[in-house]
Amino acid sequence: MDSHETITVTEYLLQRLESLGVRHVFGVPGDYNLKLLDSIIDHPTLEWVGTANELGASYAVDGYARMTGFGALVTTFGVGELSAINGVAGSYAERVPLVHLAVGPAQAMERTGAVLHHTAGDGDYERFARAHTEVTCAQAVLRPGNAGAEIDRVLTTALRESRPGYLRLPADVAAARIAAPTDPLPRTEDLDTESLSAFLRAAEKRVAGASSATVLADFLADRFHARDELTEFLAVSGFPVSTLSMGKTVIDEDDPQFVGVYSGQLSDPRTRIAVDEADLLIRVGVLLSDTTSGGFTQGFDLEAGIDIGPYSAAVDGKRFDGVPMRAALSGLTKRIGEVVALPKLRAESAVVSPIERTDAPLTQHDLWDTVAAAVRPWNTVIAEQGTSFFGMCTRRLPGGARFIAQPLWGSIGYTLPALLGAQLADPSRRGLLLIGDGSAQLTIQELGTIARHGLTPVIVLVNNSGYTVERAIHGRRAPYNNIAEWDWAAIPHALGAADALVLRARTSAELARALDEAAQATDRLVFIEVRTDMDDTPPLLTGFADGVGARNSG
Amino acid sequence: MDSHETITVTEYLLQRLESLGVRHVFGVPGDYNLKLLDSIIDHPTLEWVGTANELGASYAVDGYARMTGFGALVTTFGVGELSAINGVAGSYAERVPLVHLAVGPAQAMERTGAVLHHTAGDGDYERFARAHTEVTCAQAVLRPGNAGAEIDRVLTTALRESRPGYLRLPADVAAARIAAPTDPLPRTEDLDTESLSAFLRAAEKRVAGASSATVLADFLADRFHARDELTEFLAVSGFPVSTLSMGKTVIDEDDPQFVGVYSGQLSDPRTRIAVDEADLLIRVGVLLSDTTSGGFTQGFDLEAGIDIGPYSAAVDGKRFDGVPMRAALSGLTKRIGEVVALPKLRAESAVVSPIERTDAPLTQHDLWDTVAAAVRPWNTVIAEQGTSFFGMCTRRLPGGARFIAQPLWGSIGYTLPALLGAQLADPSRRGLLLIGDGSAQLTIQELGTIARHGLTPVIVLVNNSGYTVERAIHGRRAPYNNIAEWDWAAIPHALGAADALVLRARTSAELARALDEAAQATDRLVFIEVRTDMDDTPPLLTGFADGVGARNSG
Repeated sequence: MDSHETITVTEYLLQRLESLGVRHVFGVPGDYNLKLLDSIIDHPTLEWVGTANELGASYAVDGYARMTGFGALVTTFGVGELSAINGVAGSYAERVPLVHLAVGPAQAMERTGAVLHHTAGDGDYERFARAHTEVTCAQAVLRPGNAGAEIDRVLTTALRESRPGYLRLPADVAAARIAAPTDPLPRTEDLDTESLSAFLRAAEKRVAGASSATVLADFLADRFHARDELTEFLAVSGFPVSTLSMGKTVIDEDDPQFVGVYSGQLSDPRTRIAVDEADLLIRVGVLLSDTTSGGFTQGFDLEAGIDIGPYSAAVDGKRFDGVPMRAALSGLTKRIGEVVALPKLRAESAVVSPIERTDAPLTQHDLWDTVAAAVRPWNTVIAEQGTSFFGMCTRRLPGGARFIAQPLWGSIGYTLPALLGAQLADPSRRGLLLIGDGSAQLTIQELGTIARHGLTPVIVLVNNSGYTVERAIHGRRAPYNNIAEWDWAAIPHALGAADALVLRARTSAELARALDEAAQATDRLVFIEVRTDMDDTPPLLTGFADGVGARNSG
Repeated sequence: MDSHETITVTEYLLQRLESLGVRHVFGVPGDYNLKLLDSIIDHPTLEWVGTANELGASYAVDGYARMTGFGALVTTFGVGELSAINGVAGSYAERVPLVHLAVGPAQAMERTGAVLHHTAGDGDYERFARAHTEVTCAQAVLRPGNAGAEIDRVLTTALRESRPGYLRLPADVAAARIAAPTDPLPRTEDLDTESLSAFLRAAEKRVAGASSATVLADFLADRFHARDELTEFLAVSGFPVSTLSMGKTVIDEDDPQFVGVYSGQLSDPRTRIAVDEADLLIRVGVLLSDTTSGGFTQGFDLEAGIDIGPYSAAVDGKRFDGVPMRAALSGLTKRIGEVVALPKLRAESAVVSPIERTDAPLTQHDLWDTVAAAVRPWNTVIAEQGTSFFGMCTRRLPGGARFIAQPLWGSIGYTLPALLGAQLADPSRRGLLLIGDGSAQLTIQELGTIARHGLTPVIVLVNNSGYTVERAIHGRRAPYNNIAEWDWAAIPHALGAADALVLRARTSAELARALDEAAQATDRLVFIEVRTDMDDTPPLLTGFADGVGARNSG
């Protein structure tokens, strides 16, 4: 490449995004970003995905990045970027790497402090970028003199931290010409070979001395790309394995070593015993939150055992920095394959009860059993942070199936746009969205975006007359837990999904038939409205809700 | 009142809100705020208005506060408050006073830095409050030891600045007992009598020496409660008056002194001449933005004339602080009534062309003429920042009619929830919402909230196949300016407005008939879908759009 070649700042950024595997850019047009959108439209490999609003775009890009490893979000200055900020904060909390590009007024306007629309009217053009420092891991204001280096810094940091980066781009800078990149995006290794060796020696010794060992894996193993290394480690070690709900499907759940999803004292007893009573617990990418730990009722010592994080690891509380997760797992696999002669403890296979199809009113229990039985290896199950999450996360999914949820950030309404992003990321994996009526009302407009792109997921809308997850916590009959009564079956067609297959189910038999029909209708969006009682909750939610009430009282 | 009386922090806050005339509190329940919502539900004079999502709540409370003078918004920590932040920022920019109460985890959780849901997972509980410092004028974290004083400080500042204040409230602090307020909320006067006298002397001299004078009023005259004083000043002085579009209806538009809405070079020539060629221009509460000044094409000198702001005033660039707007206007009225003998220039009455009712496809020109002819004194016209705003703001409205728009912040989708708030604020004033299809998609779910509260506004949905306001600026046929095609006529019923009257109009004759029907059907929500061409724009928008394109190029 000619080292004197110049390209526009927009072209530079899009070239970098392309190199990260980005094929779709999400957002909403605004007058400051329109010319930049031209460049996306004209780009040979990138596709623009305009959503109905920016919050939808931010959730969609999060779902996309979870599947592909990186996402890109474009909004307009002020109004657009702030509408997206809750979604970006969710990506920050749940470690989803992406870049949020907020395109604003030209530099000449900034310099005069002009009272332009989408400003606060006081000439302060940095206000919204400052707000974004709270929810992103790297930020830059792009200028012609620094754009290339700053784009690279922000993208590299976002990748390293697996979190969102933020770029503020004045409209005129987007068109400024800068030197084209001559090298690939730099990637930091963060590997300290001595520290790694020391960790491995300590870990090997710990494993060799253990009378039993269990692996507990969580979402960070997914975010830091250690699925393969984790699977290999499990195959070689033969250790039983559990995941937290936030890391559900980071390993295949039909693996005979899988002992179920762990939720502290709220776990299935077999799962709890396997985790809490192991002589050695090996944690891989674990972050315990109230939602995922049964309200911090874990029965193990956080300072004991082996703890493998994104870039450091610990053995019985002794921490080793400069140890990337993949290297730690690969190293451990090698050592254990050579040295350890632990009995390969096979987990007892979970007894899957045959699904009863009855004509009695549908219960939450039968709902999730019936849905789980319909999941196939090529499904991505997306469960909203209500009864859907708490009900589904304890159900065993077939190997290959993926599970997306947002239990830490827990922003209701997240999953419907996340379905859009996940489905665009990999059209060969059919999305199966599980969402309650209260949650769906927050972001329903993106159903129209899903339809507009001809996507064909299956949506199970649990109509239980309001915020059942809140009823379980407080105010079982309080008016604030009621919502507007919508005609759900009319929604898909009204929002432009003209050929959607709309079904209703009030019994497990009807639901099973509806899911069968959905499985056949692969070329259409399928929308199934199911009814459950407003007070009916999965046991995991009941247990969680009791803890929330206690913690809120201080 | 017994000075030893104690009440809860929640009760203290609600008592203060009640004293400010707040009767409705907007928001979305979340597990941290549920007990606080109990207190609102149980309160004798406050009503809880749960919206479908927090952005909707933030827009609704803005519309409410514009009508009543103060608003209250309740969200949950992290997810809820950040979803509302764009709306709060809009209130900040457009000077709407309200309080945003974000209820979060109990203090005991904060102290341990627990990884709770709705946190970023890192124990930093101040993150979202810091983000709010960018879009609110006063902030506090409430503790049992400071809650009363801090509530008073934040509310007082919000009132003084006419901007949002922010309160972060740990769930347990809400229930803590503190001393009940013994005095009314302190209100600062900011009056410097000497400065006021000096201003009045200078202004009187300036008026006396002027060969002609025109008043230009804007939205700050509304926000700082100077409508009556302005009206009186106009009556006594007899000066012709114009408003900026952001201050439209701050004076009655059927007043013979009213010369039309001023938009710089894009104004009607009579309006432009009255403002730009006056020997003395008296500005009352004016903030010139690109949207409202025809892209800063005003023909007057910002340093010349009399400029009356919220708490200071200026005469030919000499500034007098400590001069509240109302006192400045009242003082000026008194002086001019006594001294000045200017000819009372009567403005030429605007020629209102008779509305033609034709069967030709509806044009933007005929659309806004027809709508304007249907406006009555008891209507609140709410115009979305697209063709609706640019088309409607130049139409003369009957005296008494109110106009709400958001031309400075310009967050599309604002008006539908703002209608909810404005309609609840004063049910006797029928809301007339004018909104395009692209904008309505952002916040459509609050139509269900409007229906749930049995409100009966009239909604004119301008279906012109996408973002026409953006097409006018750039990308006339660009795919990013297209949107999902919804079946608009099916939307009200799907979202729960079961008895809504749904009408369609493709010609001005049909629209006039539909508006007649709407005027008769006062007991129902009326939804009128009108079609206009995707490229048809009001002239004011065309002129504005040309300027935006030029400014974006830097």
